[in-house]
Amino acid sequence: MHETSVRVRYAETDKAGVVYHGRYLEWFEIGRTELLRSRGLAYSTFEKEYGLFLTVAEALLKFHKPAYYDDVILIETRIAEIRRVRFRLEHVLRRRETGETLCTGHIQLACITPDGRPVPLPEALLRRLEKEEHPEGKNA
Amino acid sequence: MHETSVRVRYAETDKAGVVYHGRYLEWFEIGRTELLRSRGLAYSTFEKEYGLFLTVAEALLKFHKPAYYDDVILIETRIAEIRRVRFRLEHVLRRRETGETLCTGHIQLACITPDGRPVPLPEALLRRLEKEEHPEGKNA
Amino acid sequence: MHETSVRVRYAETDKAGVVYHGRYLEWFEIGRTELLRSRGLAYSTFEKEYGLFLTVAEALLKFHKPAYYDDVILIETRIAEIRRVRFRLEHVLRRRETGETLCTGHIQLACITPDGRPVPLPEALLRRLEKEEHPEGKNA
Amino acid sequence: MHETSVRVRYAETDKAGVVYHGRYLEWFEIGRTELLRSRGLAYSTFEKEYGLFLTVAEALLKFHKPAYYDDVILIETRIAEIRRVRFRLEHVLRRRETGETLCTGHIQLACITPDGRPVPLPEALLRRLEKEEHPEGKNA
Repeated sequence: MHETSVRVRYAETDKAGVVYHGRYLEWFEIGRTELLRSRGLAYSTFEKEYGLFLTVAEALLKFHKPAYYDDVILIETRIAEIRRVRFRLEHVLRRRETGETLCTGHIQLACITPDGRPVPLPEALLRRLEKEEHPEGKNA
Repeated sequence: MHETSVRVRYAETDKAGVVYHGRYLEWFEIGRTELLRSRGLAYSTFEKEYGLFLTVAEALLKFHKPAYYDDVILIETRIAEIRRVRFRLEHVLRRRETGETLCTGHIQLACITPDGRPVPLPEALLRRLEKEEHPEGKNA
Repeated sequence: MHETSVRVRYAETDKAGVVYHGRYLEWFEIGRTELLRSRGLAYSTFEKEYGLFLTVAEALLKFHKPAYYDDVILIETRIAEIRRVRFRLEHVLRRRETGETLCTGHIQLACITPDGRPVPLPEALLRRLEKEEHPEGKNA
Repeated sequence: MHETSVRVRYAETDKAGVVYHGRYLEWFEIGRTELLRSRGLAYSTFEKEYGLFLTVAEALLKFHKPAYYDDVILIETRIAEIRRVRFRLEHVLRRRETGETLCTGHIQLACITPDGRPVPLPEALLRRLEKEEHPEGKNA
């Protein structure tokens, strides 16, 4: 499980006084970007070096409690499933101050070429994704 | 089934050359707003007159093909389920020019007070939601 | 002067109950896109055919009155100045229902290559921009 | 002068491969929020305690170089002018890695009541804004 955080911008709120639901997907994005970075892979480098994209194939969001302006949001990201051309990440978002769960959900990502054709996840990516499931020394 | 359309803004694209997945939720919003308006209920009026909000409790998005800048997107909205305090809308988004399905998904909306307490869907809303399922003259 | 309109999305509002100031730049974008389209040039085609971009070099926004959720906003766009590698558009945004001026401002656009080098505005673009200032039959 | 930073989200880029110009206003927002926080005033608290809003009356942005995905952007914020009901902040945004200036501009903020009437900047805000101009020990 990887954790990072983000502070709610005024721009992210709506007239109901809470964060607009569509903006949570930007926080999911931050979650997976920082998970990959923590494992040694900057996604910006991935696109440049491999000439491939990770595209969102599916997103599920369940909203439990509202996020408010200036809250610090803890973004937990967990690799839930790895398949040949796609993988699924699960997210739990909490308000740092109270620990309340605000939003849970998942993102299914597929690896594609610039013209949109699915391709197997490259080895360098797989290695980083699988790290968690086979931590060093696990079987020692 | 209700249909409306929206033209893709440059602002809605990302560096992969396609629409950012988070922006589709704004199009789902347009779909439900225009469905309600076509049934005689402006959501802006709903908030003012009833002092209630419809909050997104769950969102599911499946991305089939990318949407491109300046595409006209057809937004189909269908009322899928009505319960006491919530209802579910299903969406199909297509590229107008080709008819291709770009995105499908659903939104679960709950009726809440300004302080976030769930309340039964008010009669005026229910009447509009149920219209489709019991069209006038259906059983005549 | 060209006019188009846009309806305010819930997503565009913020917790102050009005449209977030940053979102007006998307409406300026709609204004210039529709001005060009009305003169026979889809900006999407421009990028594809010429391999060039129009990049925003400067933006000025003056906010006079707030825009509210579900308002229809009239976007007036006027070509204010044309130079060798850039041109300036002026905008006036009004609330359709009341006619009130909500926002005025300008955008300076520069023509650049994909690697960011400024280039003279191509003839096909110039012809469309100059139309207004030299309407057919003006000197007749 | 106050400095904070933000990392560019994928969501903030557009199909030209650079950050969409409208998103810079969210970074200006971060700049002023963090400037106020560093002087002991959380803007979220300001709205709650005083029942007032700081609304953007004018924004000017000059774009010098593009910001790219995953760049760390340094946001410099300087209080440029303080008047009775409004004040002006100046911003310089740089790419951390290279030091290049990407964007400069200013924001004029006015203090208003919830119904939009301008009011003098409250004392608690003024005290924080004026700090910089009269640093402790300046006349020592």
